[in-house]
Amino acid sequence: MGIALQHQRVAVGGIQQDPGEAYGSVRTASCALVDGLSDADATVQSMDDASPAKWHLAHTTWFFETFVLRPFAAGYEVFDEHFAFLFNSYYDAVGDRQPRPRRGMLTRPTLARVLDYRGRVDEAVQRLLQSAASPAVLERLELGIHHEQQHQELLLSDLLHLFAQNPLLPAYQRSAPLPVSGPAGLAGAGWREVAGGIAEVGAGGGGFAFDSERPRHPVLLQPFRLAVRPVLNGEWLEFMQDGGYNSPSLWLADGLERLREEDWMAPLYWRNPDGEWLTMTLRGLQPVDPGAPVCHVSYFEADAFARWAGKRLPTEFEWERAATDQPVTGNFVDSGRLMPGRPVAAEAGFAALFGDVWEWTASDFAPYPRFRPLAGGLGEYNGKFMHGQRVLRGGSCVTPAGHVRASYRNFFQPEKRWQFTGLRLAEDS
Amino acid sequence: MGIALQHQRVAVGGIQQDPGEAYGSVRTASCALVDGLSDADATVQSMDDASPAKWHLAHTTWFFETFVLRPFAAGYEVFDEHFAFLFNSYYDAVGDRQPRPRRGMLTRPTLARVLDYRGRVDEAVQRLLQSAASPAVLERLELGIHHEQQHQELLLSDLLHLFAQNPLLPAYQRSAPLPVSGPAGLAGAGWREVAGGIAEVGAGGGGFAFDSERPRHPVLLQPFRLAVRPVLNGEWLEFMQDGGYNSPSLWLADGLERLREEDWMAPLYWRNPDGEWLTMTLRGLQPVDPGAPVCHVSYFEADAFARWAGKRLPTEFEWERAATDQPVTGNFVDSGRLMPGRPVAAEAGFAALFGDVWEWTASDFAPYPRFRPLAGGLGEYNGKFMHGQRVLRGGSCVTPAGHVRASYRNFFQPEKRWQFTGLRLAEDS
Amino acid sequence: MGIALQHQRVAVGGIQQDPGEAYGSVRTASCALVDGLSDADATVQSMDDASPAKWHLAHTTWFFETFVLRPFAAGYEVFDEHFAFLFNSYYDAVGDRQPRPRRGMLTRPTLARVLDYRGRVDEAVQRLLQSAASPAVLERLELGIHHEQQHQELLLSDLLHLFAQNPLLPAYQRSAPLPVSGPAGLAGAGWREVAGGIAEVGAGGGGFAFDSERPRHPVLLQPFRLAVRPVLNGEWLEFMQDGGYNSPSLWLADGLERLREEDWMAPLYWRNPDGEWLTMTLRGLQPVDPGAPVCHVSYFEADAFARWAGKRLPTEFEWERAATDQPVTGNFVDSGRLMPGRPVAAEAGFAALFGDVWEWTASDFAPYPRFRPLAGGLGEYNGKFMHGQRVLRGGSCVTPAGHVRASYRNFFQPEKRWQFTGLRLAEDS
Amino acid sequence: MGIALQHQRVAVGGIQQDPGEAYGSVRTASCALVDGLSDADATVQSMDDASPAKWHLAHTTWFFETFVLRPFAAGYEVFDEHFAFLFNSYYDAVGDRQPRPRRGMLTRPTLARVLDYRGRVDEAVQRLLQSAASPAVLERLELGIHHEQQHQELLLSDLLHLFAQNPLLPAYQRSAPLPVSGPAGLAGAGWREVAGGIAEVGAGGGGFAFDSERPRHPVLLQPFRLAVRPVLNGEWLEFMQDGGYNSPSLWLADGLERLREEDWMAPLYWRNPDGEWLTMTLRGLQPVDPGAPVCHVSYFEADAFARWAGKRLPTEFEWERAATDQPVTGNFVDSGRLMPGRPVAAEAGFAALFGDVWEWTASDFAPYPRFRPLAGGLGEYNGKFMHGQRVLRGGSCVTPAGHVRASYRNFFQPEKRWQFTGLRLAEDS
Repeated sequence: MGIALQHQRVAVGGIQQDPGEAYGSVRTASCALVDGLSDADATVQSMDDASPAKWHLAHTTWFFETFVLRPFAAGYEVFDEHFAFLFNSYYDAVGDRQPRPRRGMLTRPTLARVLDYRGRVDEAVQRLLQSAASPAVLERLELGIHHEQQHQELLLSDLLHLFAQNPLLPAYQRSAPLPVSGPAGLAGAGWREVAGGIAEVGAGGGGFAFDSERPRHPVLLQPFRLAVRPVLNGEWLEFMQDGGYNSPSLWLADGLERLREEDWMAPLYWRNPDGEWLTMTLRGLQPVDPGAPVCHVSYFEADAFARWAGKRLPTEFEWERAATDQPVTGNFVDSGRLMPGRPVAAEAGFAALFGDVWEWTASDFAPYPRFRPLAGGLGEYNGKFMHGQRVLRGGSCVTPAGHVRASYRNFFQPEKRWQFTGLRLAEDS
Repeated sequence: MGIALQHQRVAVGGIQQDPGEAYGSVRTASCALVDGLSDADATVQSMDDASPAKWHLAHTTWFFETFVLRPFAAGYEVFDEHFAFLFNSYYDAVGDRQPRPRRGMLTRPTLARVLDYRGRVDEAVQRLLQSAASPAVLERLELGIHHEQQHQELLLSDLLHLFAQNPLLPAYQRSAPLPVSGPAGLAGAGWREVAGGIAEVGAGGGGFAFDSERPRHPVLLQPFRLAVRPVLNGEWLEFMQDGGYNSPSLWLADGLERLREEDWMAPLYWRNPDGEWLTMTLRGLQPVDPGAPVCHVSYFEADAFARWAGKRLPTEFEWERAATDQPVTGNFVDSGRLMPGRPVAAEAGFAALFGDVWEWTASDFAPYPRFRPLAGGLGEYNGKFMHGQRVLRGGSCVTPAGHVRASYRNFFQPEKRWQFTGLRLAEDS
Repeated sequence: MGIALQHQRVAVGGIQQDPGEAYGSVRTASCALVDGLSDADATVQSMDDASPAKWHLAHTTWFFETFVLRPFAAGYEVFDEHFAFLFNSYYDAVGDRQPRPRRGMLTRPTLARVLDYRGRVDEAVQRLLQSAASPAVLERLELGIHHEQQHQELLLSDLLHLFAQNPLLPAYQRSAPLPVSGPAGLAGAGWREVAGGIAEVGAGGGGFAFDSERPRHPVLLQPFRLAVRPVLNGEWLEFMQDGGYNSPSLWLADGLERLREEDWMAPLYWRNPDGEWLTMTLRGLQPVDPGAPVCHVSYFEADAFARWAGKRLPTEFEWERAATDQPVTGNFVDSGRLMPGRPVAAEAGFAALFGDVWEWTASDFAPYPRFRPLAGGLGEYNGKFMHGQRVLRGGSCVTPAGHVRASYRNFFQPEKRWQFTGLRLAEDS
Repeated sequence: MGIALQHQRVAVGGIQQDPGEAYGSVRTASCALVDGLSDADATVQSMDDASPAKWHLAHTTWFFETFVLRPFAAGYEVFDEHFAFLFNSYYDAVGDRQPRPRRGMLTRPTLARVLDYRGRVDEAVQRLLQSAASPAVLERLELGIHHEQQHQELLLSDLLHLFAQNPLLPAYQRSAPLPVSGPAGLAGAGWREVAGGIAEVGAGGGGFAFDSERPRHPVLLQPFRLAVRPVLNGEWLEFMQDGGYNSPSLWLADGLERLREEDWMAPLYWRNPDGEWLTMTLRGLQPVDPGAPVCHVSYFEADAFARWAGKRLPTEFEWERAATDQPVTGNFVDSGRLMPGRPVAAEAGFAALFGDVWEWTASDFAPYPRFRPLAGGLGEYNGKFMHGQRVLRGGSCVTPAGHVRASYRNFFQPEKRWQFTGLRLAEDS
């Protein structure tokens, strides 16, 4: 974590904020996500990769309790000693824990008790901030805030997966869809030329960034072209109609194996019961909009699509260089849309570079030169996952606004599809 | 199903009852089992073999809707067309269904809606009984009542399994244990001699019985001895201390394989954190009572124990012959104990032959000579499971009183341990 | 093992023979089976259930070395101490061993060295027989001879499976097929009535029998009818054309699961590349003969076929009762045919009751009342497999002549298909 | 493939050779590898990753038949049409094939017939070279030669794996080990400083290189230090004694999972039956030499060791930069040693940079900027494997001399251990 604590403030969304306000605001937003959910909705785990909503709410709280209150809040009384076991995610240095695939067994504690837990921890954190907010406290508070934002996105992705397993296909949000944000059709395609040379990438300076974004360092790029907008559903339908899922030569060997094991024939939540393509969303079953970015595709599918199109995926550094001067605006969770929308053609720069869908890059999630993990147990935050994952960039329609930045590196295994993942094409120039 | 409908009555617990009263009483008992459970408790599926409590409540209702109301209740309006898919268990002839291992994905419908469903179906059934209770209706009603009793027991077994997965080890029933029902110690062992010869087994006459209990037929038995009471925890501890779980020569080859795969070292819910054996029960974590029957052991374990003891398991027909004249009384679910109790020494006959623990027999669950399954979809009730399972006899502490009888055949795969299963020894005389 | 040693003779094929001659003759027959095979043919293991030919040759030798020479031949020098580990099959009491699924890793010792091993052991056994053939020695010799005959059949079944995995479909025996042994067509069907009552089953008296055939004991049978001949390929084709493999209602639940896992659509070695059904045999790829008994079907398939035909499988005791007075003649391995032939219509009695195909029965492989396994390590011969297997009766076209008898119980798991297994129908009378 | 055909010559080992001589020499070397093996040794497949020796001999021949003879040798008569199916490795564009995990089922064709196949193809290739060696032919011939060298190494790795599965632990090469090639002890450690800046990496110019080594391109490096020699067994023993295999914090998450699944406690072939560490080698079981490079470790182990040592693995470009000026000499297969030897201290430059053990790098096997796969079916040679693998550099003691070069990229999945793989440490300077 590069630290961005100046004058007792924390950096969230690139803005220096009052720590207590920033903390309170993020914590409140998490609770708002489970409004209207039942205890059951918040408890069931739909697959090993997903976690119950209740678990996300408790784990993010455990994070503050463990890394902020226990070491720094004198006299803090632990809410429930069992929770250290139940809600530790993967920190070996902190202790044993409930195995990840068994997070869904926890019908107790109830959702109500987890909310009590949040309340108790929130009070203690605010008390600590008012009395003794040392730089060390604020540093961890800042990390905890960004950590909680990550889990807000996971919570929504995991709920969508859960509801998609239910033959009733319940909608997380029942209100009518927002008007689409752009024009119909596949218009707006095009390319922007990006110059080569030595570019600085990664996070420098004083704002918040995860350890994996640091240190800032130079890389050497060839000139290239990047697509103005992400690949759209309409283009994906062409790929499908052209036999994309049945053409071994388009696929990486590992991708082909996975395709066959899991019978991929379309993006994850697509179905075609009566000749029309529909997709499960947080707003229930919806028609596939040809003008919106394709979503819920794996890296392997993105890579095969690019090969089919005669293009390629950008590297993460190409993406970052292209994004460097772009405003970090777009369709984030705060829009309330909760699904990708039609990109608005950009006169210059790029459309939907931030928000809508995470964009798979060709890059392995690897440490930057001279990478140093955080000290102590927090060193497990990112470092041990630097293998077997691909970098994604740009954020999605369920990412909290202000959470991402040009240097932000998300990462998932190349076969995963339940996150809000799409792609943008590149080519050599 | 042998039919026991006389003068418009149904047979439950061997007693002819008014159909509406019998139906209402069983239906009410099911709902009482989920008093105090949260929607989450009633929704989660802890393993493929288990079903959520909510699913049991809905499936038994679907059974009446499908086999009684749809064919016989003119004008009955189906509560929710989706439920046919969600709550069919395994009836291929009836239609497709939610795959068994995915019953736990159904956070919707909520428990409240399932209880509404029960209410609506109950009203329609009672209306039908008052207006047009043909023999065909009563026959299926009777089957449905006994079917629901089976699910009451499964619901409790499945809840125990769920709660045992939770590191908090919540108790289904929090009140203090009932006083034990018998004296301490291993006293009371002994044998009863049973004569050989041709014996009639299976259900005959007019009372209710499942199709698998029929037809009544003669079998030829050698004389044998049957233990007065089931094997007790104290004896099981001796088996463990004598290396029973580490002695390949005691085990069937299939059992040894399973033992190694699943690391069996004690009955299912036993644990020994600090030098004392404890066991998870519906009353939470409890000390293992040496004087109570051992419970939650597989057939393979029961068989190995018998070999260790120099004895054997009885066949189902030996058991049935011994049970023929015995009163069907014992520690059933109605006692509220919800765990096996110490057997009371019997001056004649047997102790705890009924209730406490299901007793594994050496018999394969096979059709009786000239067995005929029920007509139509109900023919799938038992017939297709007549492979790969062992017969158990006698009922358990979570079986509804009046549900079992001497000819009653329960059956599970030999490796299963989550039912309330124990054993009683036999030997050649 | 019931012992049949009188006047220094052993019982093979129901005939009292000179021990040395009987031993030599069986040992020679085993070696003859690998004439013309390469070291590679004799080494590869085609699946976990199968063993390499070389392993069969060595294991049967190890059996004599371990149970006859080591305890009884003073001064016998063990051929190679490693072989005890390599060629023990499953005797826990004897010691550790090469895991079954890894028997195919043994490219060394070579086939030539295994044949040397056989020679050395044979010399020592013959020497022992000439000098000190105590009843204990002869008893074990007799068991070893029958044990070796069992492995002769397994060796051929396993070789067929191996060659069937090879796209070249090599023939074990290249010469032209023998003339069929009976008339074309499905003629010859019909039923024989068998009376009910108390029947004695199992092996008594002095001839050789495995421990699992003993003790002889009475069973009570209902009258029934048994088909004159086994089910033929032509009938199986009708079952297939009638959708037998796609009708869930015909199948046991366990069978349906297996069918779906393994995509069963025809007997194991059948294929239909160009509109004609062919089957892989020890004589290479051959047309399916409608007039010959169906072979290489599992118990689950046999059971489904019987249900489709409105009949059932006989129990093992029904089969044994019907076979009691029948001559033990038929198409065994000695005919050199190595595949089932058309049954010859029988004027009385049954056709092809012995030989051609093993016939699945409805019976679980269970111990007989008062069963006692052999003493010591040999007690593992059959006893620990008395679970999860179905009894087959009658022998097959790869069984050595004289090896089977009316009381002979073969057994395999119900999903196995690589043995020469078929079926004969029964019905209630 | 960068093409290196000048004046009708092919490049092997960096030397322009007469095509017929180069071809003949490599082909002869392959056959020499199976001298003294039985047909069985050459047929068995010890795991999915490995292939039988016979398969390697046939597949490399199929490569010439398919890519050289079929398109270019007018009148060439295919040796056996079945071989196209049997010996295609993974070329989807060429046709269907024997599934990789079932290559060990092919007891036929025999080794003798495969050698005949080699002879026939060799004659036809030599005839073609004498009559019509167009640049296209020579280009493919050159690729085929390097392809065959790769399989020579695989053949030896696979044989070692096979023999290591055999409890008899047979030696591939029975003669006594060669004298060690360097001094005892852990002496010789040290670091060489390498300057940063823009470096050209990849293959340019006219010599042979695989497509994955092209195009040559600039990369930007930070200054770093590289160890003079690889990590030695003695150092690995320290890592083990310090609990390296039991320290989760040293491991990548994926590595930890694999360690637990496969119970890693030492390098692949190490064992410690009686308090001394031994290792299975192509010369049979040998003592672990503390002064020789550690071999048969996975990327995950190499990475954990580096973290334990407070160092890191070099990237492939760091390695290549360091290697650029180094002579390509070392302990290759031609030394006949067939196991790593003690490195000789280097006064300048590096010890054992080439030969002995392949060195894991931190780099994902990814396409170079503007990578273009070969045209046609040969495009599958490397491209589709550019995911999920780590780059290794430098060659091993079973690599043919002359096969590798500074730009050579080998690649395997990070959990593989059966290749001759070790590591060399790096650190930031």
